[in-house]
Parts: sequence; structure tokens; C-alpha cells
Amino acid sequence: MSIIVHKYGGTSVGDPEKIKKVAERVKKAKSAGYDVVVVVSAMGHTTDELIELMNCVTENPDPREYDMLVSTGEQVSAALLAMALQTAGCPAISLTGGQAGVVTEDIYKKARIKEIRLDRLKKELKDGKVVVITGFQGIDSKGDIITIGRGGSDTSAVALAAALKADVCDIYTDVDGVYTTDPRIVPDARKIKYISYEEMLELASLGAQVLHPRSVECASIYDMVIHLRSSLKDDEGTYIMSPSRIAKEAGKMEKTEAVRGIALDDNVAKIGILKMPDKPGIASQLFGALAKEKINVDMIVQAINSQGTHADMAFTVEKTDLKKAVEAAEKVARVLHADKVVADADVSKVSLVGVGMVSQPGTASKMFGALAENGINIQMISTSEIKISCVIKAEQGKKAVKVLHQAFGLEKVS
Amino acid sequence: MSIIVHKYGGTSVGDPEKIKKVAERVKKAKSAGYDVVVVVSAMGHTTDELIELMNCVTENPDPREYDMLVSTGEQVSAALLAMALQTAGCPAISLTGGQAGVVTEDIYKKARIKEIRLDRLKKELKDGKVVVITGFQGIDSKGDIITIGRGGSDTSAVALAAALKADVCDIYTDVDGVYTTDPRIVPDARKIKYISYEEMLELASLGAQVLHPRSVECASIYDMVIHLRSSLKDDEGTYIMSPSRIAKEAGKMEKTEAVRGIALDDNVAKIGILKMPDKPGIASQLFGALAKEKINVDMIVQAINSQGTHADMAFTVEKTDLKKAVEAAEKVARVLHADKVVADADVSKVSLVGVGMVSQPGTASKMFGALAENGINIQMISTSEIKISCVIKAEQGKKAVKVLHQAFGLEKVS
Repeated sequence: MSIIVHKYGGTSVGDPEKIKKVAERVKKAKSAGYDVVVVVSAMGHTTDELIELMNCVTENPDPREYDMLVSTGEQVSAALLAMALQTAGCPAISLTGGQAGVVTEDIYKKARIKEIRLDRLKKELKDGKVVVITGFQGIDSKGDIITIGRGGSDTSAVALAAALKADVCDIYTDVDGVYTTDPRIVPDARKIKYISYEEMLELASLGAQVLHPRSVECASIYDMVIHLRSSLKDDEGTYIMSPSRIAKEAGKMEKTEAVRGIALDDNVAKIGILKMPDKPGIASQLFGALAKEKINVDMIVQAINSQGTHADMAFTVEKTDLKKAVEAAEKVARVLHADKVVADADVSKVSLVGVGMVSQPGTASKMFGALAENGINIQMISTSEIKISCVIKAEQGKKAVKVLHQAFGLEKVS
Repeated sequence: MSIIVHKYGGTSVGDPEKIKKVAERVKKAKSAGYDVVVVVSAMGHTTDELIELMNCVTENPDPREYDMLVSTGEQVSAALLAMALQTAGCPAISLTGGQAGVVTEDIYKKARIKEIRLDRLKKELKDGKVVVITGFQGIDSKGDIITIGRGGSDTSAVALAAALKADVCDIYTDVDGVYTTDPRIVPDARKIKYISYEEMLELASLGAQVLHPRSVECASIYDMVIHLRSSLKDDEGTYIMSPSRIAKEAGKMEKTEAVRGIALDDNVAKIGILKMPDKPGIASQLFGALAKEKINVDMIVQAINSQGTHADMAFTVEKTDLKKAVEAAEKVARVLHADKVVADADVSKVSLVGVGMVSQPGTASKMFGALAENGINIQMISTSEIKISCVIKAEQGKKAVKVLHQAFGLEKVS
């Protein structure tokens, strides 16, 4: 029998009424003839409430005890959903990550899943039951409870779907899919029907927080189709799959659209170090110092000045890291006898994402042209095979998204 | 090294501040050179809140999912206490019942503990850690989470203490010991220093709900000393132990006091069936019918009328069961052609408890005399080796307790 995996996030199981609605949806899939495995997150704000309790007890929580504590949230929602299913006349059983055979590395709080032992799970499915599994957790070799990092329920679901060779992993959430850009900025943003793993990863890292990046990575390794959809509607959402599957589904040999989506990231700040002596090792000194402070650096641009003796270096960090980053940069600047360090938190990053860009070389110039025509000055540019990002003034961020969405015709179904 | 087991109830770990106080107390025991194992209940009203959530989802919860759900309460408090201990500089680790090796029967919601596999627990103790264990739960042969009935954390603690051959099982609660009677009724009621398992069991079943009866039973089987004490004070509480240990501790060859304590139970109702034909099998028919309705019958009194042809049967049940019990009794009365069924919810039961009573035959007549002198009419009497109970008018209950407390001189230290 075909196996299908459903994953429901915290909002979808936020209260008993919502849990009953989820039960109805799961029952429908079961009645349609599927073997159904359901992965659930903790109800609503449960995890945050547990962490609040923890913060009252300790400032420096032991990771092992943290996992012991927060894993209870999923256990509650899994048991409640199993009860709701039974009450709806659908045989069901809840399993903890450990009971479901999810074995992780021996690392608390952010382990990776090592393997999934399917014996118990398969037995319960064979008995005709829907199996409800606590997301976000497993056990290690000692039998300790391990969580796999926040947002990890998506990853649990995909890993279970892959292990069970499920047809599809349905991830239900409070949005109904991935859009060409944020519909709050561009009202005629279009829901994307198919998107590749790579594009989804880029969009996720650019602030489209509908899906945990690790789950996308995991899906791409096992070629598992993710169907991201709303738990409130029956409509199809967005299918995240390999480019080859997309081509097959869309019935096209070659991609037509270069740009799949546009993302705006406001949580960005720019730092420049001016007139560094241009000699080998300066980049490694600078970014080594930042890494030591655990500061995530995103874009990096190095320009050589006309004399070729000095380099100007610019990079972006998260806004919250700006102060720490400037301090670290200033230390390095002193050692290297650079001219000075400048910082600007008043910037945004607008990005085009699409796997087709690599074969359509006009995309970058079209982007720069559209921005220039609309009086938007570009401060930094960085490109990859499937992404072009520009740092611009923060106040022009939304305008830039609108301009680009129209310039690339994203409102039109391709 | 000597092992000591502490058990803290829901009130004692009711909020983060209280958990920190518990941590201080546990740390003190550890610093005094003991290996310490701590058993905790769920915080405050957590279990009730989980059950409330459950009742919103289903009217007929599956026992397995019930156990999965409610067991999370203890897991939260165990993890928080372990964190609080670590923060107080005391190495600690929390273990679920399953991780601690508590193996139960394969019966959900009310299993008995079958065995305790100590490997993990002993390893953690050897590593110098305080081990905090979730009370009230274990795992069955399938690895499913099993709870051992409400109030079962006391039993978990005693069973662990017995398995570990601990010196004593300290049960911390919000009262500071067992009293000769309810101090709210008799202000000079005295805290009992030593009480036997049997006496404690009688008092517990008579409404002194400081300790779960099963835990006392378990302690008596393994001759484990329970020290029932307050989590708010450092004073000694009440030691529950075998009569032989009590004699040794008290330094007396023979017991002097016949009566250890007095209990008042208001949750009682009386039913009488008048003029039943006196023939073999009537009692079994009547109480068989009540048992079928799952009605707990407490006292039973049968009197033969003067002609010897009819019997009057009287018994007591819990007040909440009165309606059901009367209905069942009336059915049987019709079949047996009894005269009629009478019921009275306006009664209380006052009881003397003490293992010494069996060797001091004057106790019963002294009790009846004291009640009579004070105008308290006795409606039913039942006696056992260590208990005499009288059913009286409800409004005279408190007066009866005062009268008897004084008559037997219980305010004086023996």
C-alpha cells in the first residue's frame, strides 16, 4: 500500500479544535487508501513556554536536560492527535521519536538523524493504524532523548518519508505555498506550483521561513517530494522537487522562466573596511576574527582600488550582530593599519532566485537596469549560480521588490 | 556509600522558585555524603490541565494515549529540577521511568511495577550525580510508556528506594507528618513520630490522604522506612516503619498506647435493607450486584431480628455512589422480597486506629462510653484488629473526634 507522510506545525495543532480538524484531514487520507504517518510539532507556543520556565530555573541550561524538557511538547500533541483520530473512528497510535526508531547522533539540541529503525512503525501500519510521531526528536545510543534543532519537525517528517519510501511528504502549515514574492508587498504575487530544492533553500535562507532548510536538504538527498500546503484549505500548495521531476510534471524539456522568486531581507547590516593593505591573508584574518565571535557573514565584496595597493572590503551581517562585528572588524583594522571601518544598518537585501538564471545571461543586467530606472542605488552586489543579491537603502526595499516582480513578469503563470 | 531517596509532590515543585528550594534541599543531602535519588511528581496542576485538554479532544480516551499524554508532566519537572541542581553546583541528571529501568506490567493507567533494572541509575550515581526520576511511570515490555495510577509517584519512590537498598525514603509533601487526628478539628492534635505500615494504611484509607496506600503496602513488603515530612521545614516528620523497628527506635519492649490516631470520614452514606428473608446467599446476591456496578462498599453490618426469620442488612458506600447503590439495592430487595430500602447521606464515620488495640480489650467500650456520655448516638459499628469505626450523625462528627482525642489522651506524648 502507498505510504503518505503528513506533517503539522504548531499552529495547525494549536488547540483541541484544530487537532480535531487535523484528525479529519488525516482520516480522509487514510480512507483514500493510504497508509498514513503523521509528524507533529508542539502545540502553539508550548515550546516557548517550556523555555520560559527553564529560564526561571537556570541561566545556563544543560543541553541534555533541555532536550528532556522541550521534547514533552510534541509528546502532548501526538497523544492528543492519536486520541482525536480514535474518536473520529480512525485507529491510531502515537509514538515518541525513540519508539518510532528515530536514532540520532549523540549530540544534544542539534543532532542529525543517523538512521530510522522501522520495525515498530511498520508493525503498527500493518495493523491498520495511523501512526502519529513526535517531530523534532529521536534517541541516541544511550537511550537519551535528543532534539534535532528548532524547526526540526520538518526534517523528521522528510526523513521518515524517505525511510518509508513514501509517495510524498505533505507539510501542512499556516501559509498555502511558496509565492513569487511576499504577497503583502506585491498583491499579485503568484503561488509557485513547482520549485526545486535549491531554489527553495535559497528562498528559505533569504527569509521565506515556511520550511526548515535542513528538511529541504534532506528531501533533496533522498529525492523526496515535499508538498507544502495549508492546513486550512484543500487546495494544492507548492511542490518542492528535483528539476527533473519538475520538467516531467510541467511537461517541458527546457525551463522558460529564469527567475522563480524574489526575496527581501531586512535583517541585514553592512560593514566596510576601507583601504586595507592588499596582501595575502587579510581576508582570512578578518573573517577568522568574525567566525571566532560566532558572527554569520553573508555577502562579501572585495574591490581593489585604482593604485592596486589597497583593498576595500565590504560584507553584510545580521542586524543584531552589527555591534559585535564592528568591534571585531576595528580590532583587525588596527592590526592591519587599514584606514577606517564604516557601518550602515539602514540597508536591505533584495534577491532574485531561480535555477534558470545560469543559462539566461541577461538576468543580472535586467535587474540592475530595472532598479536604476526607478532611482534605486545598488550598494553591493553578490551573485551565485541561482541567485543575484543587491544591497540597497532600507527605505527602498519594498519598492525594489515591486519593480523587479513586474520587470520579470512573475505575476504571469509561465 | 549510603543511598537516600527523596520524593517531592506536585505542590513542592509547583513553580520555578519552589523547584530551586527543592534543589537546595537535595544538594544538602548530597553534601552530607549521601548518594541521592529524587523522584518528582508533575508541577502543581499540570496533570489536571493535560486531562482537561484531553477531555476537549475525546470523551473516551485510549488508556495507552492517556499514559503517553500525562507522563509528560513528570518529565518537565524532572528536567527542571536537574537543571536547578546543576545551577546550584550539584551534578545531576534526569531520567524518565523507562530510562531509570522501571519496568511495569503491560497494563495502561494502573500498572504495577514488575522490576527495576538498576544499571543506568547506578552508573549515574557512581559518576557522582544526583539522579532525578519521573515518578508515576515506567515502560512495559514493548517500550510503551505506562503510568502506575494517580498518586503513584509515592510508590515509584518507595520501589526505587527498595531496589537501591536505600537507608530511607523521604517523602516530602505540604504537611509535616501524620497527626493523631486532623489539627483543624483538634488544635492540640500531636504529630506522630512513629507509625506502623498497617496503621498508616488504615489512616490513609480513612481519608488521611498524605500518602498513597500502595506506597505504604510496597514499603511494608520491603521493610523500607518512609519518612513523611514537610518540604518547607527542616523538622523531622513521621516515620512509617514496621512495629519491630518502632519498638527498637522507641526503646520499648511493649507498646503502651492502644490508639495511634483518630480519623473522621465525611464522604460516607448509609444504606439499610430491612427484613430480608434470612437464607444462605442473600449477602452474596446483594454485594455481587453492587460490585457489578463498581460500587465500593465499606462497612457491612448484618443483624438477625428476634424471630430469626429475617435479617436487617446495613452497609456504607461513598456519598457519590449513593444513588447508584440504592438503585442496585432496590432491585435485589424486590427479588428477595425484602421489606424496604432506607438510605441516609447525613452520616460520618469516626474511627480509632492502633495496632495496640488488639491487646488492650477495653478500647472499644471506652470509645462507646465516651461517645454516649456526650450524647452521640452510634448507628453502626465495625471492628478489625487495628480499627474500630462508628457511623454517627454527620453534624456530630467533629465533636466525636474531639471527645475521643481527649478520652484517649492523644495530645500527650507517650
